[in-house]
Amino acid sequence: MRLDQALDSMWMMLAAVLVMLMQVGFVLLEVGSTRAKNAGHIAVKQVIGFSVAALAFWVAGYAVAFGEGKWIGTTGWFLHLPQDSGALPISVSYLFQFAFLAVSLAIAWGGFAERGKMGIYIVFGAIYSIFIYPVVGHWVWGEHGWLHLLGKQDFAGSTVVHLQGGVAALVATMMLKPRLGKFDKRGMSVEIPGHNQVYTVLGVFVIWFGWFGFNPGSATHVQDGLFAYAALTTNLAAAAGALTMYFISRITTGKADISATLNGALSALVAITAPCAFVRPWAAVVIGAVAGTVGYYSGKWFERKGIDDPVSAASVHGAAGVWGTLSCGIFAAPDLVKNVGIGRAGLFYGGGWEQLAVQALGIVVTMAFVAAASFAALWVLEKVIGLRVSEHEERNGLDLSEHGRYGYISLPFPVNRVEAPDRRETVWESGQKVL
Amino acid sequence: MRLDQALDSMWMMLAAVLVMLMQVGFVLLEVGSTRAKNAGHIAVKQVIGFSVAALAFWVAGYAVAFGEGKWIGTTGWFLHLPQDSGALPISVSYLFQFAFLAVSLAIAWGGFAERGKMGIYIVFGAIYSIFIYPVVGHWVWGEHGWLHLLGKQDFAGSTVVHLQGGVAALVATMMLKPRLGKFDKRGMSVEIPGHNQVYTVLGVFVIWFGWFGFNPGSATHVQDGLFAYAALTTNLAAAAGALTMYFISRITTGKADISATLNGALSALVAITAPCAFVRPWAAVVIGAVAGTVGYYSGKWFERKGIDDPVSAASVHGAAGVWGTLSCGIFAAPDLVKNVGIGRAGLFYGGGWEQLAVQALGIVVTMAFVAAASFAALWVLEKVIGLRVSEHEERNGLDLSEHGRYGYISLPFPVNRVEAPDRRETVWESGQKVL
Amino acid sequence: MRLDQALDSMWMMLAAVLVMLMQVGFVLLEVGSTRAKNAGHIAVKQVIGFSVAALAFWVAGYAVAFGEGKWIGTTGWFLHLPQDSGALPISVSYLFQFAFLAVSLAIAWGGFAERGKMGIYIVFGAIYSIFIYPVVGHWVWGEHGWLHLLGKQDFAGSTVVHLQGGVAALVATMMLKPRLGKFDKRGMSVEIPGHNQVYTVLGVFVIWFGWFGFNPGSATHVQDGLFAYAALTTNLAAAAGALTMYFISRITTGKADISATLNGALSALVAITAPCAFVRPWAAVVIGAVAGTVGYYSGKWFERKGIDDPVSAASVHGAAGVWGTLSCGIFAAPDLVKNVGIGRAGLFYGGGWEQLAVQALGIVVTMAFVAAASFAALWVLEKVIGLRVSEHEERNGLDLSEHGRYGYISLPFPVNRVEAPDRRETVWESGQKVL
Repeated sequence: MRLDQALDSMWMMLAAVLVMLMQVGFVLLEVGSTRAKNAGHIAVKQVIGFSVAALAFWVAGYAVAFGEGKWIGTTGWFLHLPQDSGALPISVSYLFQFAFLAVSLAIAWGGFAERGKMGIYIVFGAIYSIFIYPVVGHWVWGEHGWLHLLGKQDFAGSTVVHLQGGVAALVATMMLKPRLGKFDKRGMSVEIPGHNQVYTVLGVFVIWFGWFGFNPGSATHVQDGLFAYAALTTNLAAAAGALTMYFISRITTGKADISATLNGALSALVAITAPCAFVRPWAAVVIGAVAGTVGYYSGKWFERKGIDDPVSAASVHGAAGVWGTLSCGIFAAPDLVKNVGIGRAGLFYGGGWEQLAVQALGIVVTMAFVAAASFAALWVLEKVIGLRVSEHEERNGLDLSEHGRYGYISLPFPVNRVEAPDRRETVWESGQKVL
Repeated sequence: MRLDQALDSMWMMLAAVLVMLMQVGFVLLEVGSTRAKNAGHIAVKQVIGFSVAALAFWVAGYAVAFGEGKWIGTTGWFLHLPQDSGALPISVSYLFQFAFLAVSLAIAWGGFAERGKMGIYIVFGAIYSIFIYPVVGHWVWGEHGWLHLLGKQDFAGSTVVHLQGGVAALVATMMLKPRLGKFDKRGMSVEIPGHNQVYTVLGVFVIWFGWFGFNPGSATHVQDGLFAYAALTTNLAAAAGALTMYFISRITTGKADISATLNGALSALVAITAPCAFVRPWAAVVIGAVAGTVGYYSGKWFERKGIDDPVSAASVHGAAGVWGTLSCGIFAAPDLVKNVGIGRAGLFYGGGWEQLAVQALGIVVTMAFVAAASFAALWVLEKVIGLRVSEHEERNGLDLSEHGRYGYISLPFPVNRVEAPDRRETVWESGQKVL
Repeated sequence: MRLDQALDSMWMMLAAVLVMLMQVGFVLLEVGSTRAKNAGHIAVKQVIGFSVAALAFWVAGYAVAFGEGKWIGTTGWFLHLPQDSGALPISVSYLFQFAFLAVSLAIAWGGFAERGKMGIYIVFGAIYSIFIYPVVGHWVWGEHGWLHLLGKQDFAGSTVVHLQGGVAALVATMMLKPRLGKFDKRGMSVEIPGHNQVYTVLGVFVIWFGWFGFNPGSATHVQDGLFAYAALTTNLAAAAGALTMYFISRITTGKADISATLNGALSALVAITAPCAFVRPWAAVVIGAVAGTVGYYSGKWFERKGIDDPVSAASVHGAAGVWGTLSCGIFAAPDLVKNVGIGRAGLFYGGGWEQLAVQALGIVVTMAFVAAASFAALWVLEKVIGLRVSEHEERNGLDLSEHGRYGYISLPFPVNRVEAPDRRETVWESGQKVL
């Protein structure tokens, strides 16, 4: 490799690792947002889904996404693609793209949370990795993809990664039906709070920082400095999203809801993913602030419609993904568009409605395809093995039913008082008769 | 960019991400060091403070620190600074410097822990990001900063980042008064142990590894290898600090106190931050060992004085920051000083008292400025909105009062005995009647 | 430095940080796999062991491993080695190699879990860092090491890092005897489940991603792209190992055991560490799948033999390390071997039994040396200070006996029911009378 290519390869390798670290964040976020009785299950299914995706994307998914072909790629099975001398090593390219797929899959899992059967994660994971995700990837990011050729702007995947994941989650949660107890007899939504907000906060921070691999990594080159610009807009948007939701929840409910604040940051990160290289910093702040709001109120709307979205995947990744994709058509600045070399300037800069229309078309097509494909796959799975655990199993928790043991085993004695020093020893000693 | 500049930009970007990851460490450390009833609040305020700082530093803080101006910078609002062709992209420079500010702010938060109002974090966070931190940054690290021109050595911020944060925390905790129950009727200190030492250990490891972005990143260049040298001294000092405190606590109390050991590592990291590029490896070990001791006994001293320092910010970052800054004036080796190009050799190498005097001056001025500015800001805030939650709210925990729900929701049944296999099923089944 | 050397130095620095991050993973994994009453102790001993290793390896370990000398290195104390102009800065080399040692040591700790005295960790840690680990390192990785000269293939340390750690853990756990209650009166094994499977999952993910510093970092250069290839095989193997164990545990026990799945991923990572640069992707999948199986059934075998391997160090790192080392002799492809420049092609590619024999020799010699040295060290320590805490201390937990306080302090009131909104306030308020 030339030295600049070596630099790019190393950057992409490290960006891939940062994006993979988002898996740690998704475990923390999804576990913390759900109940303790499902904690081990929700955590380990992430490892299993990640593993399925790694193998499936190696065997076929990468080929479908980046192989030759008009509608889908049909060359490059097992990564056997001719190595372009000027390009990244294919192993780095595979790892980077796989890490993105794994994020999209982690989002989709949100729709199955607390009631999906373990086996479904494996089969649907394979289908999603080989067929669903790579097809849209081919259209939007493939060299000859038809949406790419139309000039669709999606720098790092508001549509490809997040909207896809969000739509798959929505279809899944609708087909699985709401969790037991989520809606009362009158059909009113009952809040089922997550069991650990320290996990959710840690998860969001890890995801946020992993995003510095996600968006800046999508620049694929170092020397032009575009990666740095994308990092700046990403950070500003996330901050604006978190603060907007902090204030909205504080003002509307009197309390600063932790989930709302965190979802504000995530919605903003999702939204800035498409436009991060196309818009000015001030626009990133606006996009982030609006995204927080979109994520929050779309979540409320889903609840009113009787849809149980356990970890807000449909609103945070779906609705905010739509907004982010559209925002390119509004805020894309001419010089930045020219720099990236895809599409046209947005409405705000006199670019007219054209780019906005292309963005909207991409959204509609993606939503329709992912919804149809996910529905078909899950419909068959429902018939063949069933999607949901039994009511008895759901009440006891999936840790027990799917894995044979609760994920948490508590201390076998209460350790709960803080005593004055002289009395402490006695208290501790009460814990003597334990295994 | 030239290729070497691209390499430096990428290094600084990744160093910034490593420093940001320290936020994850601070959440773990502060949450683990405090009580479970405040856990969600303490975690999420970190996201909110980080967001406030990101926007405030973009709007104005960066300009105050690195803009043109004798005492403070007054150009470069919204990062509109002329891009020097040989320099880092300003977006990378912003992210790196912002990550440092965010660490300093995380330290300052220690003084507000378990009783500060949520709104105070937002307003004080903005003031600190725009006015307090950048002013000292300008003096020490600005091209025309007066302390910089005097030759003050502070390679990565023992003074700028840590001492500032520690002094702000000290002022805050004194103005907020001790937590309820911290001192008994006779004024004796009552220990309020943190609720999760796994979190605190994880936090310290994450912070330690994030420091490899902090100190080596401050080299800003790769090709001269200075970053690698700084990494070596940093690691040796941290190890020496942890072991010193392990032994001191073991010898003086008979038990190896977990917090003491961890604070030993942190104190050493704080102390080696200023001298990491100026001193030999053996000196780094000495500096780390002394720092652990300084951090420990300064904490004891604060307690005897009736000051409640909930997460040891004043001792670990304040006192150890003073020691680290001074240690340059003692151990700075002539060849290494020449290599960095700032100040003179230390006392130990025949450099005389001059450098030590400059270091001491920097400490005194920084402490005076930060104490005065923090006091003024908090005094006004106390009058306008009040700094502290009510006694009732403090007793119930800030999760409830500020966020409307506890951050932890336990398993709704005890899962606490390990049974022989044949009896296990029965035990688990006792958990049936749960939502 | 030349620019390509600067690029390599930066890569190795970041790889070292990734490998260090595995410490976070080991804390999570070991704490989660054991009981809550030992959680703080198990976590903090990792920091202490890491610190001991950092200093010991700086003083002498690095010299023993990489200094001049036939059987062991005897030059380069305190890193005073002549700096080869074409090589990495020695500070980076030290950090990278130290991070590997720290992993090996973390593995060895598994054998002491839940009953070893705190002081043993310090003394054995120093012996392991100065004498045991560096000796094998010298033989296999030293320029003039006799196993290296025989052509032993161990790209990133299935033997040097993992097998050594696993054997030391096995010797330790046999000398310490099983934990109280691990075997019942009839000698049958009683399962002692870990207390937090969210921690174990997070730990495995962090370790998995840290492995992208481990294996790709061992390429030491960027420009030849070998690092990328090693990353690909590593990821495929890990995925195959996790899925294999998921299915085996599901089929043999009816439930998808979380530990088994995680240990499958880890066993595969251990196994692919030696051959990652020598084998094709399909072979990596085979190696990973077999490794999962080896890790699982060797664990069962240890249990039947009355050996208590609390965190599966002997099976996951020991047995899978043997398999991984041998697998080079089977699957090493001629062109890849030529590319790396060590040893010969494997059995499968017509390379004959020669390479397999060299690999086996390396395993036997390493196991014999590490077992003998660990036994000798621990035998002396047993006589002098004793290896194990008292029965009373073990029952109460090492948090209390070694550190004076439990690592977890619970919420002082139950927060365990999810109520309909109108009744919630009452429930929370029941928590009023707390400190």
